[in-house]
Amino acid sequence: MRAGWSPRVLTLYLVLDPDLCGGAEGLLTTTAQAIQGGVTAVQLRAPHWKKRQLVEVGHRLKELVSPHRVPLFVNDHADVALAIDADGVHVGQDDLPVDVVRALVGPQKLVGLSTTCEREHAAVPIDLVDYAGLGPVFPTETKPDASAALGLSVLAQAIQRSSIPCVAIGGIGRGRVAPIRAAGAAGVAVISAICGMENVSYCAAQLRREWEEGV
Amino acid sequence: MRAGWSPRVLTLYLVLDPDLCGGAEGLLTTTAQAIQGGVTAVQLRAPHWKKRQLVEVGHRLKELVSPHRVPLFVNDHADVALAIDADGVHVGQDDLPVDVVRALVGPQKLVGLSTTCEREHAAVPIDLVDYAGLGPVFPTETKPDASAALGLSVLAQAIQRSSIPCVAIGGIGRGRVAPIRAAGAAGVAVISAICGMENVSYCAAQLRREWEEGV
Repeated sequence: MRAGWSPRVLTLYLVLDPDLCGGAEGLLTTTAQAIQGGVTAVQLRAPHWKKRQLVEVGHRLKELVSPHRVPLFVNDHADVALAIDADGVHVGQDDLPVDVVRALVGPQKLVGLSTTCEREHAAVPIDLVDYAGLGPVFPTETKPDASAALGLSVLAQAIQRSSIPCVAIGGIGRGRVAPIRAAGAAGVAVISAICGMENVSYCAAQLRREWEEGV
Repeated sequence: MRAGWSPRVLTLYLVLDPDLCGGAEGLLTTTAQAIQGGVTAVQLRAPHWKKRQLVEVGHRLKELVSPHRVPLFVNDHADVALAIDADGVHVGQDDLPVDVVRALVGPQKLVGLSTTCEREHAAVPIDLVDYAGLGPVFPTETKPDASAALGLSVLAQAIQRSSIPCVAIGGIGRGRVAPIRAAGAAGVAVISAICGMENVSYCAAQLRREWEEGV
């Protein structure tokens, strides 16, 4: 995956939330509809699941996204990513160190790293990591332990000072996609703007259109 | 590790509990003293820890146990086991499937699998797994979601019907080690009989002596 990958796949990055989606089956339905709407990347994030379930649902997700050339990322667990041959792993600052992740998954998988401030964003090792998450840009209720919101100007500054492709996250919904693109991000990551919505495909399409058209 | 390993290392198998031990430092102190007392294997099990901490403490545990030729197992996380070059991985029925674990860690690391009844114990694939845990043998308060206690006669029967080395677990303390050895187990796994005790080394030595002397 890594050889010749394009940061374009980060455009509209769906982080799945099994609770908001209504469990494993809801997760799969949400993913299918979100891809129809224009989601370009999917992350399996289910911190409360046992790994047996992560592997089982992960295999089904991989089958679902592959025909659309939508990369599947696994949050936190490099072993699960290897088990289901995911396209990448996404880790946070308290997860496996990125040198360990890169050594485990090899050169071909994508590795993403969450950052929560300019300092962390500037410190991302671009030889090991393919993209950085940065946020929360806006206040969010999805992740109760998230840091304070950064705002658009800090986002733009952090992006300008680093060459790593940046996916903005946190409180992003309609009306906030275009400004984030204008700030120089490679994409937006969303959870609650898609997971649990009545019309997932429509919501995804609206966000995607805002990205592409800038309004 | 796997080539030429002896089930003798399973004799007195300490499963670490960070809460009972009083955190990361307590975990390391407990391990050092328990090895002094005669513990023959150590498992890092900290389901509430982030992986960064598992890797950091895991590295220190590995340094601590290696000179004593005491194998270190990591519970659940094959990626952490690889990151710290642990001697093995221990998984439960809801964790990574053992074929996945074996494929990830290769032929040289030990793989253990928890079982909770005769049926699960008989189903352990001996080509992939090096030893099975079986329990709880006696009622236990350490693991609130544990199944019903099996008792010594079911333990003996399960051991007789399988060729996999068996480590008995659950409610095991002084006075219960000799009967478990008599039932044919390769060893006993303990948590609260060592973690959090005032004199860890003494407690471990008592259990080890009961195993060796049969009384």
